[in-house]
Amino acid sequence: MKIGNVPYRSVWVDQDDGWSIHIFDQTRLPWDLDVLRLTELDQVAHAIRTMQVRGAPLIGAVAAYGLALALRVDAADAAMERDAALLAATRPTAINLRWAIERMLDRLRPLAPAERVAAAYDEAGRICDEDAAQNESIGCHGLSLIEEIAARRGEGKPVNILTHCNAGWIATVDWGTALAPIYMAHDRGLNVHVWVDETRPRNQGAALTAWELGSHGVPHTVVADNAGGHLMQHHAVDLVIVGTDRVTRTGDVANKIGTYLKALAARDNGVPFWVALPSTTIDWRVRDGLTEIPIEERSGAEVTAITGRTAAGRIETVHLTPPGSQAANPAFDVTPARLVTGLITERGCCEATEAGLAALFPEHAD
Amino acid sequence: MKIGNVPYRSVWVDQDDGWSIHIFDQTRLPWDLDVLRLTELDQVAHAIRTMQVRGAPLIGAVAAYGLALALRVDAADAAMERDAALLAATRPTAINLRWAIERMLDRLRPLAPAERVAAAYDEAGRICDEDAAQNESIGCHGLSLIEEIAARRGEGKPVNILTHCNAGWIATVDWGTALAPIYMAHDRGLNVHVWVDETRPRNQGAALTAWELGSHGVPHTVVADNAGGHLMQHHAVDLVIVGTDRVTRTGDVANKIGTYLKALAARDNGVPFWVALPSTTIDWRVRDGLTEIPIEERSGAEVTAITGRTAAGRIETVHLTPPGSQAANPAFDVTPARLVTGLITERGCCEATEAGLAALFPEHAD
Repeated sequence: MKIGNVPYRSVWVDQDDGWSIHIFDQTRLPWDLDVLRLTELDQVAHAIRTMQVRGAPLIGAVAAYGLALALRVDAADAAMERDAALLAATRPTAINLRWAIERMLDRLRPLAPAERVAAAYDEAGRICDEDAAQNESIGCHGLSLIEEIAARRGEGKPVNILTHCNAGWIATVDWGTALAPIYMAHDRGLNVHVWVDETRPRNQGAALTAWELGSHGVPHTVVADNAGGHLMQHHAVDLVIVGTDRVTRTGDVANKIGTYLKALAARDNGVPFWVALPSTTIDWRVRDGLTEIPIEERSGAEVTAITGRTAAGRIETVHLTPPGSQAANPAFDVTPARLVTGLITERGCCEATEAGLAALFPEHAD
Repeated sequence: MKIGNVPYRSVWVDQDDGWSIHIFDQTRLPWDLDVLRLTELDQVAHAIRTMQVRGAPLIGAVAAYGLALALRVDAADAAMERDAALLAATRPTAINLRWAIERMLDRLRPLAPAERVAAAYDEAGRICDEDAAQNESIGCHGLSLIEEIAARRGEGKPVNILTHCNAGWIATVDWGTALAPIYMAHDRGLNVHVWVDETRPRNQGAALTAWELGSHGVPHTVVADNAGGHLMQHHAVDLVIVGTDRVTRTGDVANKIGTYLKALAARDNGVPFWVALPSTTIDWRVRDGLTEIPIEERSGAEVTAITGRTAAGRIETVHLTPPGSQAANPAFDVTPARLVTGLITERGCCEATEAGLAALFPEHAD
């Protein structure tokens, strides 16, 4: 997508040297657009752990390139397996990370070490291209949901869509998942307005989704995470679309903490609640999201302090709680499939059920 | 309650001059304990509007003293009615404010202007004493709910209580509403632990509830507002207790934005959801909370910026959103009575229904 009319992806190989990796430092957004150059495994692991890159699909793509960088140093079997395991452990919840690493290993294990570096770059590039293409497909399938509502609402009335966290183009290689249908609708002239949950504690909504939408010219309003239920009670939300870090084969959805609360409110108010995902996000081995998906517990410091820009233009971190008060910080929650209206995948929309997913992805059916 | 072993109320008349009013500037907590001296009507209105005092019961008490201060300047009928209307309009959602002003006027209207100042101080003092006594009763009735759970959980296991916003002693004259049962349980040696919702956008949980509980020695953990549903799914919450700004005669509950989401999660997970209130919070004239209670829309700047303390000790306000992104800020929501397990009042606990309330308060029954 575009920043100031210049098209970008969220990760790319340096055009000059042909091997180093570029990402945006997402911890600096929306204040600074810092491009980081990554040249070694540890930098990639650090970027994932500290959320300089985040978003389930983007983590997978960057980790794939991380393995390519590691192979440049040592492409022997033992090193490759060790480095792959290190990358897979950087974040526990997103399934795409594990999927991307396993796909890389499937391609690389049969090869001689001397052939692995070139193959790794090639495979990582394919992962990126496929992610962008899948997300564009998600956009097309999700667009029809928005068009239906727009037709029902009638000329001139905006379609109000609520989203949580950031599942936009900078959470993926391009297009985004939850935001792909919104970008498409906006680009086709549909009147869409997005309620952006700020998404405490890391404020990916207030900082990243608002920045993305604003850069692209999509009308939006930031709200506290607490506001969504009230907005739905007062008919100010026509549709919820969120992304996900992992979907079970039965349709349970792990996503940023607080997603479950919005799904409950959507159900209570008859608002459709859709989840957009590339099929790489589906964990076919897991049936029960609530008991089987590990939920990352991040530092309480993400709750007790927050970073922003002062009126003088300095980026400052301020402490919010009294000295001595501790915080807990579960980073994700699981929305049971029963609360999900449906899933938007690159192959089309389906019910959030085992049968719904199996119909779209028969190769994974029992 | 106590700060550093010194007992305080949240509003008091100056001991030396006998007429000026003292409050804590709650916008400075938890960083500074600033006591403000209020000497005129405009200061009181400003303190309420800017939330230097907040919390439905405390607003009513401080407004009562505000009228007393105004009468010292002009105690004639016209001035009294004008000043009362000005105070009643400072915040739209809390019913206690209107209740306190009407109670003051009922006492003052029949009196000659020369008698009104002394009577106003007397009546405001009674409002304060009654609030403290009512909240102590709420504490006793709510205590039994906690004791039941403690007995069921067994020795040594903490009773985990989640609360939203601040309905503690500094939201009232003393004791608090939602926190009164918790203080009582803690003081009697019960093992209680409180999950404190930070309560964006104004962070009354992170700043005020955490400060109160910490000052009193009650174990607590601050969490992002998004976390409560996840905690309930994983059996980490035994009980939710919140306060309220207005309860309808049918049991609908207006409270800080986000309360409704927690009620939905409590219902979905079988967690009891109780609302603590003095009966002055009940609006007997209103049947349907969702359509009849006005919801204050506060400045979007409360969402787009936040105030905290830097590592260097400065209090700074930092901006959180990109330039050009607007925010909406509904301050309250309404939890339908069907989601409320029960109400804890100064006369005991009851169902959140018209019949439940009528049985405890027959003088208001049809």
